[in-house]
Amino acid sequence: MSKVNFALIGYGGMGHWHIEKVSTLPDIHISGIYDIDPGRQEEARQKGYRAYASLEELLDDRKVQLVTLAVPNDLHMPIAIACMRAGKNVISEKPVADSADELQQMIDASQETGRLFTVHQNRRWDEDFLIMKKLYDENILGKVHCIESRVHGSRGVPGDWRNKKRHGGGMILDWGVHMLDQMLQLVPMDVVSVSCTVSHVTNDEVDDGFRAILTFENGLDALVEVGTSNFINLPRWYMLGQNGSAVIENWNLDGKIVMVSDWEKRDAVPVVTAAGLTKTMAPRTDETIKTYPLPRVESDVRDFYRNVLATMEGKENQLVTHPQMMRVMRLMEALMRSAESNETVHTRI
Amino acid sequence: MSKVNFALIGYGGMGHWHIEKVSTLPDIHISGIYDIDPGRQEEARQKGYRAYASLEELLDDRKVQLVTLAVPNDLHMPIAIACMRAGKNVISEKPVADSADELQQMIDASQETGRLFTVHQNRRWDEDFLIMKKLYDENILGKVHCIESRVHGSRGVPGDWRNKKRHGGGMILDWGVHMLDQMLQLVPMDVVSVSCTVSHVTNDEVDDGFRAILTFENGLDALVEVGTSNFINLPRWYMLGQNGSAVIENWNLDGKIVMVSDWEKRDAVPVVTAAGLTKTMAPRTDETIKTYPLPRVESDVRDFYRNVLATMEGKENQLVTHPQMMRVMRLMEALMRSAESNETVHTRI
Repeated sequence: MSKVNFALIGYGGMGHWHIEKVSTLPDIHISGIYDIDPGRQEEARQKGYRAYASLEELLDDRKVQLVTLAVPNDLHMPIAIACMRAGKNVISEKPVADSADELQQMIDASQETGRLFTVHQNRRWDEDFLIMKKLYDENILGKVHCIESRVHGSRGVPGDWRNKKRHGGGMILDWGVHMLDQMLQLVPMDVVSVSCTVSHVTNDEVDDGFRAILTFENGLDALVEVGTSNFINLPRWYMLGQNGSAVIENWNLDGKIVMVSDWEKRDAVPVVTAAGLTKTMAPRTDETIKTYPLPRVESDVRDFYRNVLATMEGKENQLVTHPQMMRVMRLMEALMRSAESNETVHTRI
Repeated sequence: MSKVNFALIGYGGMGHWHIEKVSTLPDIHISGIYDIDPGRQEEARQKGYRAYASLEELLDDRKVQLVTLAVPNDLHMPIAIACMRAGKNVISEKPVADSADELQQMIDASQETGRLFTVHQNRRWDEDFLIMKKLYDENILGKVHCIESRVHGSRGVPGDWRNKKRHGGGMILDWGVHMLDQMLQLVPMDVVSVSCTVSHVTNDEVDDGFRAILTFENGLDALVEVGTSNFINLPRWYMLGQNGSAVIENWNLDGKIVMVSDWEKRDAVPVVTAAGLTKTMAPRTDETIKTYPLPRVESDVRDFYRNVLATMEGKENQLVTHPQMMRVMRLMEALMRSAESNETVHTRI
């Protein structure tokens, strides 16, 4: 096949990341880059790329077939729709929109124009997520009743557009969009209720952290949490099944699985813990449990782009679909509604 | 002063614990033990204690001034009231009652008879709790916005009265009563809302775990969680303040404090984490944080009994007061109401 002509809009942190990734894909030709900032246009030129002087110039470039948007969140909708109307296929950075209404307009534009429209849910290729998905899919721990997914940092919300409400800032939209997408990919069931609280430790305008509890229809309880004032991190992933537990401590994939090997030897001898005695919380002896390393998984985030190219050719189905995008959006809206009202939101998502 | 004559009712696990503790207190004389089980009566006799043949025999023993109840939870109320009416001061094991109504009847009996009535909240003397209280009281971490208290085991609910609803079983009543009391002692504010889910992994009749989120009136968010199917434990305590975080991993008091030493050096260089780039979650460099050991605290759980004796003499105020007992009871009821309705309970406790 001939190469797909690709253009990037927004040459900031993630823009550089996209250029770096697509540069390594033999089926993509980088036609050029547009950024509103003249300094970044100059940087693109110095690196040997065509720098479009305006969005219109890029839209008028008939050769460009695929555009990635790595601009502040509030600009995704107008630019994505303009690109699709100009005949381009579109990958948007996340969160794709600030509301389900906006997202619907983008999906409508995709259907009207017949152009591909997807969102860069790159964290579906995170190895930590894929390990948890493997444990779940292969029923390694027995019936899973609880999954906890946390991302903790200690730098507050970065002092750029990310702390502005009008630019779609805040952690529900920023990290939540990935972690909720992962959770929905992990657990193939409807969410039936959502309870969420947000934090404003370093920032009043947008949430600088949140803790959401999703109840799935079989009762599985999922916690999704982001913190930006956490100087000590809790584990990235924690999963509880009927016969064992798994933990992934960090991005380095440190972690383990502990499985019960003898359920019968359950009746515990009470032990002293601090100023009290406990039978319930007596630690297990080694003879009734067994510890295993986490399974290994292979992952290449460029498979996201490979799938986009194959979808354009009609050879594969789009991996990050419109219904999935809408589901994550509706879930984020439910989180915000729950946090604002301090009520559990009963819904089916 | 002359020794206080003490009797124990219920010579099971906690009964033995009480005898062991009071045996070491010079101001207490053990008058005898009553247990419904003839085998335990025999055991008491063999250990040199008088074994009462019936509750009535104990109540009729005019010498007995102080009685500790270590019987299943549903028996606390009738026996405590009978003891007080017979002129005894009463320490009840926890949870003191199954409902606020029952507790009120016990408090009324105390006021009518003028007898001391308190509950064995021994875990106020847990060193892990006292360390967290010291950090909070001395404002070590700056303004605290989140406290998490977890107790994890993997043995399910023990197969005795603890898994029977009619005996006051379940983890909200069993461990919740301690952990909620600790949280209310730690944070000197009203709780304004409660959200709770319970688990039934190994037991349908009573909760075998719960996760409660308490919101205090200044917005401080407290998580209290018990799990009995957790083969890997999350930390016992986790506290987040504006300038640092603290963790206590386990009953051995492993843990640390991490404080920010330079807030200005916040602006992060984006880092690659799994299949993505992040600026928000870039780990801190060592130059902007400092790690400290946890402070040490001294604790002797027998101070609970010492306070009871001093209260009986009019020399001290009762440490575990009726309003505190009622507050924990109301909080447990709010947790159960929230879990049952799957709604946030708005209340002031």
